[in-house]
Amino acid sequence: MRQIEISRATMGRIPTYLKYLKDKALKTENISATTLAKELGLGEVQVRKDLGAVSGAGRPKTGYNVSELIAVLEKFLAHDENSNVVIVGAGKLGRALLDYGGFRDYGLDIMAAFDKAVDTPEKSNLGKPVYSMDMLDDFCKENNIRIGVIAVPAQSAQEVCDRFIKNGIKAIWCFAPCTLDVPDNIPVQYENMALSLAYLNKKI
Amino acid sequence: MRQIEISRATMGRIPTYLKYLKDKALKTENISATTLAKELGLGEVQVRKDLGAVSGAGRPKTGYNVSELIAVLEKFLAHDENSNVVIVGAGKLGRALLDYGGFRDYGLDIMAAFDKAVDTPEKSNLGKPVYSMDMLDDFCKENNIRIGVIAVPAQSAQEVCDRFIKNGIKAIWCFAPCTLDVPDNIPVQYENMALSLAYLNKKI
Repeated sequence: MRQIEISRATMGRIPTYLKYLKDKALKTENISATTLAKELGLGEVQVRKDLGAVSGAGRPKTGYNVSELIAVLEKFLAHDENSNVVIVGAGKLGRALLDYGGFRDYGLDIMAAFDKAVDTPEKSNLGKPVYSMDMLDDFCKENNIRIGVIAVPAQSAQEVCDRFIKNGIKAIWCFAPCTLDVPDNIPVQYENMALSLAYLNKKI
Repeated sequence: MRQIEISRATMGRIPTYLKYLKDKALKTENISATTLAKELGLGEVQVRKDLGAVSGAGRPKTGYNVSELIAVLEKFLAHDENSNVVIVGAGKLGRALLDYGGFRDYGLDIMAAFDKAVDTPEKSNLGKPVYSMDMLDDFCKENNIRIGVIAVPAQSAQEVCDRFIKNGIKAIWCFAPCTLDVPDNIPVQYENMALSLAYLNKKI
């Protein structure tokens, strides 16, 4: 599949477009970027750019066919391959992520969490499984897990990272305040909570 | 105080510089950007730019005086004013933030969390207070709270936001998937967990 280069800001707006279009789809056949921009309170140039990046330009006068546009946006978010995710570390943060509903908007499935403090399988508040670390390797293989989330303290993060990579995980989302040693072909996204807040503090 | 314009990336590296300098400070009087870059595995241009933005240029040949540089970086992170923070919503995410240690690196003090499900004051795992919502207004006034964190579901977020603003809070960090209606002078930072993960998924 062609790797689509798209900004994080554009990607952030796609669920907004989708939500609006799904309400609108039953009522109209076509929609213009101008209408979308007006209804969503966004700039028209921005809407054209966003939709252009994902779907191509709309037709002159008529704009976009609503059902086609929905299909394209959904396909973009869903990704061609699976988007199965596991979390290691089932503390407060790990469990908050496990039960967070917003990931579905982006076609991501947080399937389970694993924790060394867990012996017999548990369920999260919303019924997602929390397993012992013994079960991680088999689970990753059986479910073709694509992304691993690290929600353990910094001193255990590299060990978890190595285990993810051994199990064929393709990318890592790291909440531990550390720098991981990973092969060049494995993207890592670090989530630095403190930095976000500090940055906000500077804006006041 | 002059508002320092500094990129989020630069700000993210300041704790790294500080940690290294504090280990080094007892051993050497001066340090060059070249040495710092080499020791930290960063580009020299980047280090010069980062330090230049916060502290000004180093002296030719000698570089930066280590103790002065530490003082400037610490002052930058600490902010001239207080950095007192409260959280509303003491679910898993709220409690994870309350007990997260990394905020201290940026001079931020997460003082307490508040939740409508709490009647009598509780303590978090690390001993931070969790209060009932009745106590929010007094607490904000007495502690001169500067930043409010919203960790409640989307449908309650605006109500919490309005209450923060009524209590003189200067900025809002919002984890609820919603858009808040705030006065122009109140910066809001939205934390979209799902978007971060979706963006990582696209990079694979």
